[in-house]
Amino acid sequence: MDTVAELAARLRVDSIRSSTSAGSGHPTSSMSAADLVAVLVARHLRYDWRDPAAVTNDHLIFSKGHASPLLYSAYAAVGAITDDELIDGYRRFGQRLQGHPTPVLPWVDVATGSLGQGLPDGIGLALAGKYLDGLPYRVWVLCGDSEMAEGSMWEALDKASYYKLDNLVALIDVNRLGQRGPTDLGWNVAAYERRCQAFGARTLVIDGHDLAAIDDALASVAAPEAVDRPTVIIAKTVKGKGFSEVEDSPDWHGKPFPEDMAERAIAELGGRRRLIVRSLEPPAPAPTEEWDAVEAVDLPTYELGADVATRKAYGAALVSVGSHNRHVVALDGEVGNSTHAGEFAQKFPDRYFEMFIAEQQMVAAATGLGVRGYIPFASTFAAFLTRAYDFIRMGAISGANVKLVGSHAGVEIGADGPSQMALEDIAMMRAVHDAVVLYPSDATSTVALVHAMAETPGICYLRTTRGAYPVLYDATEEFPVGGAKLLRASEADDVTLIGAGVTVHECLSAAKQLAGEGITARVIDCYSVKPMDAATVAAAVGATGGRVVVAEDHHPEGGLGSAVLDALVAHELADIRLAHLAVRGMPGSGTTRELLAWAGIDADHIREAATMLIAKSVVGSH
Amino acid sequence: MDTVAELAARLRVDSIRSSTSAGSGHPTSSMSAADLVAVLVARHLRYDWRDPAAVTNDHLIFSKGHASPLLYSAYAAVGAITDDELIDGYRRFGQRLQGHPTPVLPWVDVATGSLGQGLPDGIGLALAGKYLDGLPYRVWVLCGDSEMAEGSMWEALDKASYYKLDNLVALIDVNRLGQRGPTDLGWNVAAYERRCQAFGARTLVIDGHDLAAIDDALASVAAPEAVDRPTVIIAKTVKGKGFSEVEDSPDWHGKPFPEDMAERAIAELGGRRRLIVRSLEPPAPAPTEEWDAVEAVDLPTYELGADVATRKAYGAALVSVGSHNRHVVALDGEVGNSTHAGEFAQKFPDRYFEMFIAEQQMVAAATGLGVRGYIPFASTFAAFLTRAYDFIRMGAISGANVKLVGSHAGVEIGADGPSQMALEDIAMMRAVHDAVVLYPSDATSTVALVHAMAETPGICYLRTTRGAYPVLYDATEEFPVGGAKLLRASEADDVTLIGAGVTVHECLSAAKQLAGEGITARVIDCYSVKPMDAATVAAAVGATGGRVVVAEDHHPEGGLGSAVLDALVAHELADIRLAHLAVRGMPGSGTTRELLAWAGIDADHIREAATMLIAKSVVGSH
Repeated sequence: MDTVAELAARLRVDSIRSSTSAGSGHPTSSMSAADLVAVLVARHLRYDWRDPAAVTNDHLIFSKGHASPLLYSAYAAVGAITDDELIDGYRRFGQRLQGHPTPVLPWVDVATGSLGQGLPDGIGLALAGKYLDGLPYRVWVLCGDSEMAEGSMWEALDKASYYKLDNLVALIDVNRLGQRGPTDLGWNVAAYERRCQAFGARTLVIDGHDLAAIDDALASVAAPEAVDRPTVIIAKTVKGKGFSEVEDSPDWHGKPFPEDMAERAIAELGGRRRLIVRSLEPPAPAPTEEWDAVEAVDLPTYELGADVATRKAYGAALVSVGSHNRHVVALDGEVGNSTHAGEFAQKFPDRYFEMFIAEQQMVAAATGLGVRGYIPFASTFAAFLTRAYDFIRMGAISGANVKLVGSHAGVEIGADGPSQMALEDIAMMRAVHDAVVLYPSDATSTVALVHAMAETPGICYLRTTRGAYPVLYDATEEFPVGGAKLLRASEADDVTLIGAGVTVHECLSAAKQLAGEGITARVIDCYSVKPMDAATVAAAVGATGGRVVVAEDHHPEGGLGSAVLDALVAHELADIRLAHLAVRGMPGSGTTRELLAWAGIDADHIREAATMLIAKSVVGSH
Repeated sequence: MDTVAELAARLRVDSIRSSTSAGSGHPTSSMSAADLVAVLVARHLRYDWRDPAAVTNDHLIFSKGHASPLLYSAYAAVGAITDDELIDGYRRFGQRLQGHPTPVLPWVDVATGSLGQGLPDGIGLALAGKYLDGLPYRVWVLCGDSEMAEGSMWEALDKASYYKLDNLVALIDVNRLGQRGPTDLGWNVAAYERRCQAFGARTLVIDGHDLAAIDDALASVAAPEAVDRPTVIIAKTVKGKGFSEVEDSPDWHGKPFPEDMAERAIAELGGRRRLIVRSLEPPAPAPTEEWDAVEAVDLPTYELGADVATRKAYGAALVSVGSHNRHVVALDGEVGNSTHAGEFAQKFPDRYFEMFIAEQQMVAAATGLGVRGYIPFASTFAAFLTRAYDFIRMGAISGANVKLVGSHAGVEIGADGPSQMALEDIAMMRAVHDAVVLYPSDATSTVALVHAMAETPGICYLRTTRGAYPVLYDATEEFPVGGAKLLRASEADDVTLIGAGVTVHECLSAAKQLAGEGITARVIDCYSVKPMDAATVAAAVGATGGRVVVAEDHHPEGGLGSAVLDALVAHELADIRLAHLAVRGMPGSGTTRELLAWAGIDADHIREAATMLIAKSVVGSH
């Protein structure tokens, strides 16, 4: 334990040195948890620091990501990074020791810094360990007390107990102080204990600065009574512990000490330490178990013209993709019979995780599963993915490999009304860094795109439609991410009509109507909203005198119309005459036809907009 | 109690009739809660159905909004709507009885249908009743058991107990079945009880079909032991109760009965009922208490050129606006010392509600406060508002009067790294129906816009900046919502530079540099991103040969550049040569200057982009 005490002192000193050197950071939030992390890293964490990819390594997540000085100081104490990097690299431009941890560092699984996400992410890793990998690694999550106010933490504990995740250990650093003052519950560790127990966790309440007590608590996770439920260690701590000038002070959140204070603090802590510790060796991986043979299921095919809902094609495609790739797993927010993820659940129950109505946890679990090399497809109504936007945003920072599927998009859904109608989801997903956004119009393209999603790393979003619409494509057609389909074109078209999803069918109807009036329309199915096939779009619009009608079942901001405009600008097409049809009002209930007409995005409105564009050009040319 | 039993039968029969007539809806989820609602409406709810605006009316929220047949049947049973409207209007186009309740109906406070939101919204109403109105109304919230899996429900109970909301009563309809099968906890009412108690609620577990037990439970909310904490009534119920063919069946979620089944169900329930019941009279409002006099605080003014952070100006402005309008209240997500909402909290502690780190609950509480006529300003880091996107989206359906303020936007924040950098928030907020999006560049305009937000109904978003930048405007300048400022213009400008927030300063610097090269640039401060001053923008771009540089501290999709393009298209400006500078990579830590340069949105990059646009035009004109 002497070594551990020395290590704890080193972690505190280095947390101070790095943050003072950077001129920003959270030394006091690091110091409260230094004893917890010292005992964990020196005596319980099984981790080969030279091989962060080793499959039997434990996982260490700082859900309180602002304690990055502590995490990085631990990296230095195990020799993973140098003291120079710790002191001169922390929070500097171009360096990997960022203000909050991200997987730019090989030892970091998921980006944290938006509170209440590390524990939910950890659920995904623990699910992988217990149910998929069959590996004995543990997932240790250091949580702040402030972040226990986030509902997502309780979604996480609920799922941890439902799935009996005894490989998950949460350590709550109850230092009683948040950013601007005392937390909701302060040092009421009994209240935390009651809540965690009620959510199904085994709990231990300890003095977070008593090294022996910490050691006992961490050792107990291997005890028989810890089986089949998560452990939560509730540690009463003191913010700024170790430096008497700031201990338990509400005035020192997120502030580095000035040089003179840092010197006094380091002196009080007994000066710099240089000891290097090792973590426990992770066990050698057991010989890989052979996965049970799975009967390959062919990709579904559909007859041209048959009415099939894209959400239904999604379910069938996922079963096929999953039969060929055992890393494909699925999650759903308790609506699998609507999204058709239920078909995967029936076929591959061992690779399906029901997340109930907890969309934040669903996305977080998918993020964690992705860390272990799985390809998680997570589905719910598209409208309800808005619930998880912060998790999706953080997933992009994590470089998460997550496939999101949102069904029941737009006013097309009809009678259920606006609460169930996704009208913001494309804008939301397009703004996510490097995310792919797909919106197929028929069953054939849906199948191809589900297949493509599994092969495309990163965050991909598929928007599906409630109703059944005619199959437009033969199974031989290819649908690369970033492509578009010219569904109708002639040498001398008057106008380009662009749709995606349900509006592709409206564009085709409009084109037929226009043909009857002697107007020839080019029709593009922009199934890949991001990246967009800017070349095809720009060429079409250029060939039709800049005249283009875009129709989308989405609010006008940030969706398909916006993507088309961005594509045209990127191709330096200067002369643009766009009629942008989108859902500009607040819808109510109704039938699909009534609502598409009300929104002004049906074939009649597209035809009318095209006719007006052409009439204007004629006037303009006089 | 005979009347109540008759009422319960009527509610079940009418839930069946309305949903069967509509061909969609959730009769079985209505039937499980019919006894709870019958006892509540007939014997405990104090409500004048002829005067939904009466200030002493209780509030009735269906957090399980899909039970709309039950709610609307109750409206019919109290005579608020006709049987014709109930049967022929439900879920029909253009009608107000939508698939899920919205405030299109005068008796509905908030839109529900995205689960886990009605209870959080109710917290806002209960806060208003207890701490602001001083009125004795109760807030009754009917919750589903499925939605208890949403973390937001636990954020709500946490705040309900923290704020001692004894005027809040949640009724959980534990019918054990979700959409696609059993819920997480099934009929484990003891588990619900432990969780609710651990979160500080008084709980009662009852048989949800025992009218006397329900009556006792509802009566008990006035008992001494119910003081200073919320009550949660956990009612064990049977889905589809009353129609033996479907009782407790997992196959009948969200499905109306076909005509023949509906007939059998109504027969089993004893046929149609026509009784009309009355709710209890709400008490007469007490004579309005005089509010304590508040010393008026002048709007802050700033010296031209002084460096002031817009987030700091926000805090000062809010104090001033709050001193003139007692309906202004503030909430914050435990970062009030960063957003500067803390200044309002210090000045007006009675009108400030600390929401700790629970952004969903913060927005929901604001929504509820808005229902009672308050003007809530809710602030946190802009990045963390993404946590509440589903609540903001639903707020738009509610017609909520909510003012959101997000600080620390973009890469400008520097060392903290990407988790703290809002780079998606403008896209997210622009896509919200009818939302106003404001992004001031200096302290003077911030003050004016905070004032304007208080006067502008609906959802308004203000994006503030971390760092201090020069004051650009004199206090006499006006900043209408939907306006823009021409900061620099001459008769013959070569190019238009458009910025908002921090990039306005970069545009000004670039214009100065360009002037040195003999290029005259027009500079626009687009402080109102939505609605945008399309006329000013289009006129400027038109006057500069279509040449425009837009620079924004946001990802390229759906933000300022997108808004400018939409404005140009709306003004039918066909000839557009846009250079769009935005944050196209994933940032790390660094200084503000390093990161603005890295992102390519600083003055140097703006100058360069302008120069290239002009060079291209010259080539093009040969």
